[in-house]
Parts: sequence; structure tokens; C-alpha cells
Amino acid sequence: MKIEQELKLRWQKIQTALKQQQIDACFISTNVNLLYVLGRVISGYVYLPQEGEPLIFIKRPEGIVDEKFIYIRKPEDIPAILKEKNIGLPTTLLLESGEISHDEWTRLEAVFQPAKIANGTALLRKVRSVKTDYELAQLIESARLQSLSYSQIPSLYRNGMTDHELATAIEYNARLNGNLGVFRVFGPSMEIFMGSVLAGDNAEAASPYDFALGGAGIHPSLPIGHNGSKLVDGESIMVDISGNYTGYISDLTRTFSIGKLPQKAYDAHQVAIEIQQQLTEMGKSGAVCEDLYLISLKIAEKYGLSDCFMGTKQQAKFIGHGVGLVINELPVLCNRNKELLQENMVIALEPKFIIKGVGAVGVENTFIVRKNGMEKITKVEEEIIDLT
Amino acid sequence: MKIEQELKLRWQKIQTALKQQQIDACFISTNVNLLYVLGRVISGYVYLPQEGEPLIFIKRPEGIVDEKFIYIRKPEDIPAILKEKNIGLPTTLLLESGEISHDEWTRLEAVFQPAKIANGTALLRKVRSVKTDYELAQLIESARLQSLSYSQIPSLYRNGMTDHELATAIEYNARLNGNLGVFRVFGPSMEIFMGSVLAGDNAEAASPYDFALGGAGIHPSLPIGHNGSKLVDGESIMVDISGNYTGYISDLTRTFSIGKLPQKAYDAHQVAIEIQQQLTEMGKSGAVCEDLYLISLKIAEKYGLSDCFMGTKQQAKFIGHGVGLVINELPVLCNRNKELLQENMVIALEPKFIIKGVGAVGVENTFIVRKNGMEKITKVEEEIIDLT
Repeated sequence: MKIEQELKLRWQKIQTALKQQQIDACFISTNVNLLYVLGRVISGYVYLPQEGEPLIFIKRPEGIVDEKFIYIRKPEDIPAILKEKNIGLPTTLLLESGEISHDEWTRLEAVFQPAKIANGTALLRKVRSVKTDYELAQLIESARLQSLSYSQIPSLYRNGMTDHELATAIEYNARLNGNLGVFRVFGPSMEIFMGSVLAGDNAEAASPYDFALGGAGIHPSLPIGHNGSKLVDGESIMVDISGNYTGYISDLTRTFSIGKLPQKAYDAHQVAIEIQQQLTEMGKSGAVCEDLYLISLKIAEKYGLSDCFMGTKQQAKFIGHGVGLVINELPVLCNRNKELLQENMVIALEPKFIIKGVGAVGVENTFIVRKNGMEKITKVEEEIIDLT
Repeated sequence: MKIEQELKLRWQKIQTALKQQQIDACFISTNVNLLYVLGRVISGYVYLPQEGEPLIFIKRPEGIVDEKFIYIRKPEDIPAILKEKNIGLPTTLLLESGEISHDEWTRLEAVFQPAKIANGTALLRKVRSVKTDYELAQLIESARLQSLSYSQIPSLYRNGMTDHELATAIEYNARLNGNLGVFRVFGPSMEIFMGSVLAGDNAEAASPYDFALGGAGIHPSLPIGHNGSKLVDGESIMVDISGNYTGYISDLTRTFSIGKLPQKAYDAHQVAIEIQQQLTEMGKSGAVCEDLYLISLKIAEKYGLSDCFMGTKQQAKFIGHGVGLVINELPVLCNRNKELLQENMVIALEPKFIIKGVGAVGVENTFIVRKNGMEKITKVEEEIIDLT
């Protein structure tokens, strides 16, 4: 069966990393990594030794008939099961220390009492950053459906709308096209609903989150995105709504306008497209992540747009990021990141500018890193479209 | 200013608990508790000593002009700031150990090097379980808007719809009524979008999550809720979509039908209403949480409905739960919970049954615990409404 071969491939990728770091086994309990190693979310754990098949311990859903699933009540049941199967307890164990709570970490430490615990968060994120062919196909399908949803945005606009009405209409249309809604983000504090729709000067409102642009949001409990204002003539509208159609999330931003914008907005938009073009040519496997960020700064500077590049009051310090099961996978294209791009990484590039009194302009697309450059998988008109 | 007085009241509630447990200070970094102590989400930390004003350390959003906010780059900057202000480092410090990652916990431990670290998750959840008048008003407003949204559900139905089409129409309508979308849940692994719409036998599909009823979902990455089937005659449809209209989340479930249901479905629905009635009378301040669960089991048993109470293949082991900033606040009305209900706790009661071949029936409402019983704040028709 295809998915079983696919999962074996992923286990092997993790096992190769475990061998390199001389770790005996990894113990997975977060949804995102369970999804990676099982192709589904369960309430339970996966124990993956350096060699051989993983053991799948499950609490819920109850009643799955599958000999691969071992039902347990609590993680404390696991050592006895390992003993029964003549599997020794690991000396070095990998836990997802950057994601699981301190209480859960302490509990699992007591269960396994390993001599050493290694940090699995970084290792698993690194493994996930290079996609298999199956994963690329999932991302291409998400990108296709996300592009389709974006092509329908002009038909959703009605004269006199607020940004909230437009944003919710875009969300609803995406849901009807199969968007799963949930927007998985790495980092527990970065809450967001389905993405952001930023009209006019709200685009420069600083948010608590490390996203490219913020927006004030409609409530202090969720300070990001649209702020409830009426859309007005001469404003740009930047739409950055999640592409989670397959569990894998593609990332796509387009700029629209209400009527005609000042020429400087169109000019800055063309600079964003120039930056994107330059980066897709540079972004072949072996390129240094930092270099892509630095060249984008240079191009913005060449056009005198440094002050409004990636924000004004608060400027994002990256030009792109990996995507996959979460919206912010590795690598990040930012200062001091000397990591090399690898074939089959999937990267979102998002050069954006703020034009005071107008709003945000620019684009974002999702690309597969290939030997000779980046291959764009989000495909929909890139020029600024007038909604009126 | 009203919100400032409100926040002071919340600080005092936490400080009282700190005193009782002889903890010098608590250090808050999760969104939900930042929202509780600041009324807004920031990227930063709140250091609340046992007495006096809290110190608010902020990283983002940049540029807030407010003398209460102390900008820092990283938590390691904090001890020097405390020293400057002649504040000694805490001997016993409370961290949110059940929520923050092990890595973050380790980092904060190194920053403060306290003699002892106490677990703040339980303490803060306990404090949050009893609401202030301001919080009650927020919950009443959420309940009002959620009830309004539910009253509009019959107008959203179209003949031939799938459950996905109905669910997304309900979500969209809720968003237009001001629903903030984000559905805050305690427990990192319980991902959900805006709630669930369960039609027919999908209601008994077991989910990985500890919610009352599951549903298979439309994708293995999000195994909860509707499954994409066409709605058919003779099915019940249970709608349980989040009431996050104010940051505070009310909880409300109603049952609809496509045409007429078998009599046993209506009968079971009346048993659910009887359970609700009994519990609202019992649920005065001082009642034992467990007792409410046990009486609900007894009533279900009296009617021969034990096998389909709160699920069939997988039965939820509670009859209600606190609500507030998250959907699953304390207390839980379940076996072995000897905790007493207190005035101004806010509780969702959700007696539900599964009728094979029909679907789920029952109700859920949100109540304020009062001296003499529970006061219902979600107000919309409770009988099963035929959508056709």
C-alpha cells in the first residue's frame, strides 16, 4: 500500500538522523509529528527505535482494529510492554522538548529513566524540512486548491463591505473548496484563525506574532488581521489566508485594490515581484538561506524602499520560510542563517511593502527547491487586481 | 478605568492563591494567562509578585507607548531589571509547567534560579474557574450572540446539502455575527476548528479527543466533526459550534433533523432535557461535581439508555465542564471529582445520546452557578427542529 511505503520512508529519514546523533529511540507525542509518522492524528505515542519498526501506543480513538496499534491507558504502561517484547529501555531517548509541556517531559522521563534525553524538536523539524515525493504531491494539491480559491476572490467582493465581511467571505469560500480550517503553527503562542486580510493602514499595525505583517485584529484576544473597518476607495487589500487543503499547508498572498492606487504602490509591487524573481533564480539547492534575505534587503534599498520593506512600525526580519505540516517549517530565510537550501525543501517567499495611506503590496508564493532554482506551485494572477 | 480595576481584581485573586501556597511570585507567558492578567495578548511575560503591581515585560508588538510596559529582547534581560528596581529574585517561583514547553521551562529556570519552582497551571486554572462580574458579562454577551447565531441555523439549510456545506454555512454565519473564530482549548493535542456538526451515524465515530462526541472529520489530520456526507432524510444533526464572541467562550449544542425522526430519538432527547433540568437544580454552590455526573448516569440508566449515553463506541466520561477563556476550563463534572461548585463558576452541561441509524440527540447550555442553582445564559429553542 502506498501510504505504508511512504510512512516507512519517513521512519527511515528519522532513523538516519537518530543514528548520526547516536540516539537509541525517539518518542513522539505531538499531533504534528504523529501526523508525520502515522499519517493521522491519534491520542497516543509512537516509539521509534534507531532500527526496525515503530511501536504505536494508542489511547483514543477506541476500537481501532489493527494489530499495529497497542492500546494503553497511560504512558506508564509502556516499559512493561517493551519488556514483554524483549526490547530494552533506551539509554539515550529523544523527546519533543521544544513542544511538549514541562509536566509531560517530566512524566516521560520518569517512565523511561534514560541516561540522557535529547531534544527531538529541532531534529524532527529538520527531517520534516525536506519533503518526500508524496509530501510534494500533497503540497502541490493544496497549492492548486488555494490558487483556485484566490482566483474566486474578485467574485466575493461587494461594494460597501467591511474588511471583516470580505475576510469571512474568503474564509467561507476556501472552506467550500475543501480548506480544513485549522492553521497549524509551530510555537504555542502564535494563535491565528485562517490567516489575515489587511486593508489600508491596518497593514502596518504591529502584532505580537512573528508573521510578515500584522494587523490590529478585531479583538485584543486575537491581535492579528483585519480590524473591522469599511473598505474605502484607494486602499490596497492584502489577502494571506491559509492553504491547508491536505494537511500540508501552502502559502499564498495576493494584493487587491478598491479602485485605483497611487503609482508608488504599483511601483513597490513590481519591486516585490523583482525580488521574488531574483530569489527564485538564486534559490537552487546549495544556496545559503541568509543570502536570499540579504539580497532582498539590497533590492529594497536600491529602490529607496528599505523603510517600508516587510513592515514599517515593526519590520519582519525574514523574506521566506519553509512550509509543510505547519505554516512555519524550517528553514527560515533570515539574517545569520547559514543553512543551505536542499532539493525538495518547500519554501514560501513573501516580499511585501507598506505604502502609507494605501496599505500593503507585494506577493507570496510557495516554491519547491530544485537543482536549478525554485519551482512555483501557487499559480494565480500576481498583478494587483481592482475589486471594484 | 473599568478594565484596570478588573485586572487588579484578577491580580489579587492570583496573589491570594500565591500567599496561601507561600509562593513569592508567578511568571506568566502563555497567551491564555496573559489575556487573563492583561486583557490582551502580547509576546512577552508578566511577573506578578505576591504583593504589589505586576511587571509587564514585552517583546512584541513594538512601539506601545505605555509606562507599564517594559521592553526586553529576551527573558535573560529580566534579572538585571529587577535588580535595578530593588526587587529581589524569588525563592519560590510559579511557572506554567503544564503548558509551557520543557525547553522554555529550562530557560526560565536558568534565568531566575529559584530554590523551588511551583506548578502554575493548576493554580491559574483554579483561579480562572471562578469568574468576576466583568467576566460573567463577557460570557453572557458571548452566549447572547451564540444563541442568535443558532436561531438562524434553520435559514441556512438547503435541500441536498452535505454536512460540510451546512457546517461551513453555520461557521460563516457565526463569523458574520462576530465570532472570533479561534477556539481556545486547554491541552496542546486537542485541535479543533470551530466545533462540530454531526449528522447521522457519524456522531458515534470515535475521535482522539476528549470531547463529548467525536465524528470522523473530513481528513485524518483533523479527525473530528463532519465527514463530508450528504444529509439524508431521517437523520439528526447535532450542532456544537464555538461561542467565542468576546474572548470568553460560551458552549451551546442543539439538535436538528432532516424530516421526521423515529420516536425513540425524541424520547431520548427529552431524557437529555430531564437530566439538564435535574442538574441545574442540583448545581448550586456547594454541590459536589461528581454527584452531578453520577445522577446523570442514573437517569440515563432509568430509561435504559446507558449504552448510548455520551457516545456508543467511545463514551465521554463527564457530563459538563467549566468554560471561559478556554472551552475546557475547570471544573469537570466527572467521576471521582470531589470538588465543590462555587458561585460564579460557569459550567456547560451537555447530556447527549446516540440513536443508531439516526444520530445524536440532546442539548448543551452554558450556566452560571448561583446560590440556589444554575442560571442558563444560552437561550434558544431546545426542542429538535426539522430543517426541511
